[in-house]
Amino acid sequence: MPCPYLGMRDGMMSLKEQLDYLFDPRSVAVIGASNQLGKWGFIILARLLESKSGKEIYAINKKEREVLGLKAYGSVVDVPGPVDLVVITVPFQGIIDVMHDCVRKGVKVAIVITGGLAETGGEGARIEQEMVEIARRGGMRIVGPNCLGHVDTHSNVRTVGFLPGVKRGNVALISQSGNSSQSVTKYAGQMGLGFSKFVSSGNEADLHFEDYLEYLGQDDKTKVILGYIEGFREGRRFFELAKKLTKKKPIVIMKAGRTDAGVRAAQSHTASLAGSDMVLDAAFKQAGVIRVEEISELVDVAVPLLGQPLPQGRRVGVLAMGGGMAVMAADAVRREGLEMPAFSPATMEKLNSIMSHRWSRGNPVDPGGDLVSYQALWPMLADENIDAIIITGGVGMIASFPDWVKLPSSMKSRLDEARKRMEGAEIGNLDKTIQLMKKHQKPILFTTHVSGAARRGKVHSKLRSSYLGFYPTPERAARALACLVEYSEYLGIARGE
Amino acid sequence: MPCPYLGMRDGMMSLKEQLDYLFDPRSVAVIGASNQLGKWGFIILARLLESKSGKEIYAINKKEREVLGLKAYGSVVDVPGPVDLVVITVPFQGIIDVMHDCVRKGVKVAIVITGGLAETGGEGARIEQEMVEIARRGGMRIVGPNCLGHVDTHSNVRTVGFLPGVKRGNVALISQSGNSSQSVTKYAGQMGLGFSKFVSSGNEADLHFEDYLEYLGQDDKTKVILGYIEGFREGRRFFELAKKLTKKKPIVIMKAGRTDAGVRAAQSHTASLAGSDMVLDAAFKQAGVIRVEEISELVDVAVPLLGQPLPQGRRVGVLAMGGGMAVMAADAVRREGLEMPAFSPATMEKLNSIMSHRWSRGNPVDPGGDLVSYQALWPMLADENIDAIIITGGVGMIASFPDWVKLPSSMKSRLDEARKRMEGAEIGNLDKTIQLMKKHQKPILFTTHVSGAARRGKVHSKLRSSYLGFYPTPERAARALACLVEYSEYLGIARGE
Repeated sequence: MPCPYLGMRDGMMSLKEQLDYLFDPRSVAVIGASNQLGKWGFIILARLLESKSGKEIYAINKKEREVLGLKAYGSVVDVPGPVDLVVITVPFQGIIDVMHDCVRKGVKVAIVITGGLAETGGEGARIEQEMVEIARRGGMRIVGPNCLGHVDTHSNVRTVGFLPGVKRGNVALISQSGNSSQSVTKYAGQMGLGFSKFVSSGNEADLHFEDYLEYLGQDDKTKVILGYIEGFREGRRFFELAKKLTKKKPIVIMKAGRTDAGVRAAQSHTASLAGSDMVLDAAFKQAGVIRVEEISELVDVAVPLLGQPLPQGRRVGVLAMGGGMAVMAADAVRREGLEMPAFSPATMEKLNSIMSHRWSRGNPVDPGGDLVSYQALWPMLADENIDAIIITGGVGMIASFPDWVKLPSSMKSRLDEARKRMEGAEIGNLDKTIQLMKKHQKPILFTTHVSGAARRGKVHSKLRSSYLGFYPTPERAARALACLVEYSEYLGIARGE
Repeated sequence: MPCPYLGMRDGMMSLKEQLDYLFDPRSVAVIGASNQLGKWGFIILARLLESKSGKEIYAINKKEREVLGLKAYGSVVDVPGPVDLVVITVPFQGIIDVMHDCVRKGVKVAIVITGGLAETGGEGARIEQEMVEIARRGGMRIVGPNCLGHVDTHSNVRTVGFLPGVKRGNVALISQSGNSSQSVTKYAGQMGLGFSKFVSSGNEADLHFEDYLEYLGQDDKTKVILGYIEGFREGRRFFELAKKLTKKKPIVIMKAGRTDAGVRAAQSHTASLAGSDMVLDAAFKQAGVIRVEEISELVDVAVPLLGQPLPQGRRVGVLAMGGGMAVMAADAVRREGLEMPAFSPATMEKLNSIMSHRWSRGNPVDPGGDLVSYQALWPMLADENIDAIIITGGVGMIASFPDWVKLPSSMKSRLDEARKRMEGAEIGNLDKTIQLMKKHQKPILFTTHVSGAARRGKVHSKLRSSYLGFYPTPERAARALACLVEYSEYLGIARGE
């Protein structure tokens, strides 16, 4: 489906060509570049320089002769080479002049960080309108205004000042809130998730959420699309695009503004119209869009989507270290509308032979004081009554050697040896587990509350690189699994309820 | 209300005297002490030695002559001095002999780590029953069996092997699940919360949740009591005790086993009867017990209970860094049944004069791209329409200087200077905020997703030591606040709905 905006102007660049200039420009100029600590024009230029993209970077500042060690130009028009992308941080009163300059210079895309426009109504809204008209006449596209910038981890062009922890990977994030993206990228970093592209879409005066979605749908480097959204500019286009895309590429959306107070706040934030939440819910379902309730759940769902099979049904087996974890996981599974069936007689027989008489003798499996072992996990994975596994508390050595225990020094070397030996065995067990996961096409969600040793080392690296977890709580794992089940049912992979 | 058990035996020690021997014994013996890595008898003895309580510690092992550098005795009876407390880790088949020895020795309290008893039914249940009878005849109390041990941060007697991060403080935790307590203590450590006492109550064959509750109710070092519970041994006693205690000391309970599968799992975990969840809910409410849904919420609620005033109503003011955070916080507040009223005209006037024209002009307050300032917080605190504040995204410098930005070295010293200057100002602003919080009797819940600088330094220390946060998400802050409001209404401090 073509961008409606493009339909207005024959012979222009395609949306793909335009957004290629955003994500992989030959050169970037910061208009409003500053030596002043804390200014947007300071932090954004510092970030661009730090990320070493190899692109030409220019500083534009009317008063200074040098900014952060770069020669400063009075206007973008004065830059000697071509400028594909600009980042604009000047106050809103100066925006119109800057836009004229950009068009004269032949800039392809302008990221407007500046706020105080449509979201404040009145004068700001008028300026925003004029800004868009200048860009349209000049064949330039606008990201924002009132946005935080963007990141491409492949071209390494990063215009977002405040967004630590964005590693290269296969997830894209489109966000109508800049600051909130920090939650997503920070938690994603902890879960080992990397990004292909990120864009803070702001007020969406010109480029809409739907434009980015269409572009990312065609982007080979993006396997999963995440979105934070407060309102749609082109609702119908969103759902038609989504319907096509979700058949091949999952879309996970956090839609804020669900309550009366939230809708009012969204209106003043990005001047968006929220629409009826229940109607949206139904539309999301019809289009195969995965909707989450809290922003960190975007990451919870993206992790297994990237590296695990989709569940073939809603029947969950739980393996828990400790009875309390077993009870809480069982509660969580049921509250998410998933099932906790009994194991097959064959599985029960195997589990009885593997575990001590203390085990819980049913689903959830609690070894009753012993460590949770992979030997218990494997028959559960093979059980024809089970579609997915949630593990809480860690398996094998992960939980068995907390490194905060200070030992008499005589024992230290024995412990280190044992650690090493067990780490080797653990990696072997994990390999076998991943094979079985693929063979049986059943996802495994690891949950742990154990810090320290569990969060480091080869075992943890392997868990992260295999997209197996860790989730911080069984509740979060169950919620993510419920989303996977729903998506799997939509695709016809899982049997419906 | 006296312990029913005590009623059976006139002239015996009071419950308080008995549990004093548990939490502050003169000596502790580990029966089943081991040199073998990973064994309970190894890790518990290591922990006892490491915590340097100054108490006499004895190792009991039939075969070894020395364990972890201590002389090993074949039986507790052979120990030369008195033994007040024992920790028993021998397999269940050996428990009865050990119990006879303990009674002969005059041991006051036995912590039985050993599992495989009542929770497995049959033979195990019979042994557990016999064990209790021996103890009763001999005037000894039992913690557990099938438990993890206990911690007293004042006597520094710590028998729990795996429980990092338990610092000294004023919160007590009673838990029917040992492993799950790790979630609580780990997160509590992050939130700066310290504990007075912790006990893993296990199968509660002798000492019940209710006994610990009664004891902690009288404990001066305990200001808030947290509990993880799957089922009550003495439901009526619990609610009568709670009704009395909650008038002075808050009780926060995570009751697991809410669903069909959860109840079944609880039965096999601690052999407890769960009872109807809806009836329990009503009983909790009548007794002023704060009930939470997830285990980490125990900490979320304990933090403001320790250091902040209770809200006088359910009307919340939100101050948010960024519009997305504002929308999500507003949604969270409303979903928890709290209110988001308009500000008074006086507050609006002040906010208009403090902030740029970009601000959201209402509740939630979003400065629209500027940093969130304390100057905006103070009029909100004074507003007669507002009972509590949620802040999302950090205030002032907390969010303004992420330390991952690598600067040209010429700027480094200027930045360090600015940091220091701002830190000083921030501490002053926080002091004034805490004064106003007390003056207006309105709690303030800080939320942040910003790591790095925000989690370190003097400002963060001050936030933690003042029990102001940080919550990881606005949803968590709103949930905690809703619990505070309910408790405050119960006490008659807040106006009811």
